[in-house]
Amino acid sequence: MLKPNLCYASLKDSYLFFHIAQKTRAYLEAHPDAHLYRMGIGDVSLPLAPAVIRALHAAVDDQGEKGRFHGYMPECGMPSLRETIAAHYGRRGVFLSPDEVFVSSGASDELGDILDLFDRSSRAVIMEPAYPAYVDANTMAGREIVHLPSGPENQFLPLPEEGLDADLIYLCSPNNPTGSAYNRQQLGQWIDWANRRGAVILFDAAYEAFIEEDLPHSIFEIPGARSCAIEICSLSKTAGFTGTRLGYTVIPKELERCGMNLNAMWVRNRTTKTNGVSYILQQGGTAVFTDEGQRQIHENIRVYKENARVLMKALDAVGIRYWGGHNAPYIWMECPRGIGSWEFFDLLLNEIQVIGTPGAGFGACGEGFFRFSTFGDPADTREAADRLIRLLQREAGGSSAS
Amino acid sequence: MLKPNLCYASLKDSYLFFHIAQKTRAYLEAHPDAHLYRMGIGDVSLPLAPAVIRALHAAVDDQGEKGRFHGYMPECGMPSLRETIAAHYGRRGVFLSPDEVFVSSGASDELGDILDLFDRSSRAVIMEPAYPAYVDANTMAGREIVHLPSGPENQFLPLPEEGLDADLIYLCSPNNPTGSAYNRQQLGQWIDWANRRGAVILFDAAYEAFIEEDLPHSIFEIPGARSCAIEICSLSKTAGFTGTRLGYTVIPKELERCGMNLNAMWVRNRTTKTNGVSYILQQGGTAVFTDEGQRQIHENIRVYKENARVLMKALDAVGIRYWGGHNAPYIWMECPRGIGSWEFFDLLLNEIQVIGTPGAGFGACGEGFFRFSTFGDPADTREAADRLIRLLQREAGGSSAS
Repeated sequence: MLKPNLCYASLKDSYLFFHIAQKTRAYLEAHPDAHLYRMGIGDVSLPLAPAVIRALHAAVDDQGEKGRFHGYMPECGMPSLRETIAAHYGRRGVFLSPDEVFVSSGASDELGDILDLFDRSSRAVIMEPAYPAYVDANTMAGREIVHLPSGPENQFLPLPEEGLDADLIYLCSPNNPTGSAYNRQQLGQWIDWANRRGAVILFDAAYEAFIEEDLPHSIFEIPGARSCAIEICSLSKTAGFTGTRLGYTVIPKELERCGMNLNAMWVRNRTTKTNGVSYILQQGGTAVFTDEGQRQIHENIRVYKENARVLMKALDAVGIRYWGGHNAPYIWMECPRGIGSWEFFDLLLNEIQVIGTPGAGFGACGEGFFRFSTFGDPADTREAADRLIRLLQREAGGSSAS
Repeated sequence: MLKPNLCYASLKDSYLFFHIAQKTRAYLEAHPDAHLYRMGIGDVSLPLAPAVIRALHAAVDDQGEKGRFHGYMPECGMPSLRETIAAHYGRRGVFLSPDEVFVSSGASDELGDILDLFDRSSRAVIMEPAYPAYVDANTMAGREIVHLPSGPENQFLPLPEEGLDADLIYLCSPNNPTGSAYNRQQLGQWIDWANRRGAVILFDAAYEAFIEEDLPHSIFEIPGARSCAIEICSLSKTAGFTGTRLGYTVIPKELERCGMNLNAMWVRNRTTKTNGVSYILQQGGTAVFTDEGQRQIHENIRVYKENARVLMKALDAVGIRYWGGHNAPYIWMECPRGIGSWEFFDLLLNEIQVIGTPGAGFGACGEGFFRFSTFGDPADTREAADRLIRLLQREAGGSSAS
């Protein structure tokens, strides 16, 4: 009898966003005419940049013409795109060889796939609150997980503690869900810890394009990272590719453990388990890195940053503490009056038709907090902010009267 | 110290197609003006069908327009495409629920990813000669592999033998590389074996569109398959998507082992480890299943079938035994005079500039055989066939004279 992967039986029953979708669907069934203000899932609302659309059309045309048609792509990415991304890092002072850059179908695919490089006995530390897939993907592999909680006391930016014993660590900066971002000195502490222990850092840089302060966009800006880090990037939030799909991963050539080279192992993984990423999507992705593409994607990012300002102003107006919003597309607020985060979710949905994400969905230490995405429609975000102010003022009044 | 996945150290040194590419590059460096007749790697040469191109352009336009823009897609596939594929099976008398169909980025990605559903102690049988990635992907997971060799004595279609002890079996029909295809009665024997043992069949149906005789296109045409089989399909060869990427996988809802439902496990895997397949590619794939799309892809398939006829005629002319060519885009020939398959590769490359694939690359029992792909350019295929006849006649003359 075939034995299935029994680790799946250890997964918790339901997935955060699935649960939110169920509650939302139930609300809409009961209130079919309701307009919802969606600031839950971190999905973009603005269309792709014109330069990207033009490149996608040209690539589709190629696929329809003999002589310009492309069959199998190189499994690790088109050389021209790998060079383009390496040059993009170069402009920030990070010097990569193009064969240290791997083109992917997106960060979430890659965060799951890359675990194949590590022995299942390796122990994973996950800084929490965290993107739920980190925990689930490691649970599926039967890997022991060490939860590294954070909170207001460390600005949701945990640092390596005495005795932290692990082989693999997930760092996401700017962070989903808290919006906090490590500075150079803090990332340096993690790099020192990883190099000392022989651990490997999986650095999720999906939100780097939202950084506005002087903070590292790439872990490779920090000395020592090339011997301990893999960086996983995505065009999903940077360029609106959530439904178009493209990402990239950086694995330095000097990253070795137990005499095995992780860059070479990933080449072997990709050439065995994939046939490369779509030519059309790679051509679209290439356009993101042109001057025109960069200008256009930053126009979209400015719209989302204005959403963040609107929401932060609302929270300031009612005196609620929050993190993020400046260097990240997420705002992480404290729930009022110490209420639970799912209770706050229900309150917002039922009272003001605003959808956010309960902090408890990102790990135990997320309880009591709530995440807003700033990727929504600007008019919706303004209306949601007004509704939030009215609700929270009324709640504050109600609670002091009771 | 992080321990990498040491199973990678057990992989054989080089990958078949990589090795061919190296030899080809070396030849071109020595003979920069040579024209090569490429019938090695199974990559298509004809552009995408006009109906697909139109759908891709329309989808790109959607991604550029507010109101029509698509963000995150459902992880298991667009409901409309899952329904379209289920309806396509229905026209062949195979009735699937749309949520038994999973949209993928292609068969090779899926053949690697799906192994996550099975315990690493499960033993895999691989019918050989075989696509090399089957062996490598299981080696990476540390899985024990049972090689099930085939040869001319069973028309390269092995059947379950007394005492065959395994949990997972790979069947590829029509087969890559041999071009052989199982009939209903033979597939029925495998299904009986799998149901009796509780094994699971991974059925690779990537070449089903090339079937011209009365043979099963899907394993689900055979009674009993729903309790023991997963079918992995691809638009790569069917519709020329090798560089565009799209596939689909069928997992029946009654497929359970040890009380765990494999369809539900795959939903959990996809929702955790992916964010779905590109909207643009799914729209392009949907067009393949329209009446217009089906008519157009079969026009391309007819061109490849004409290539097969040209090559079969050449082999008939020189009296060489071969398999495939009728229900598959591959021709599997016996090397002349008992020479080794890499030796034959070198002979063809150096003497007549024709590139094929040495049988030894598909497993030990492939030695002494050689694969031609019929996906090449028709004019190149005709010239290659003429050169093959001249070479093999000269070789036969030379060998009889010596």
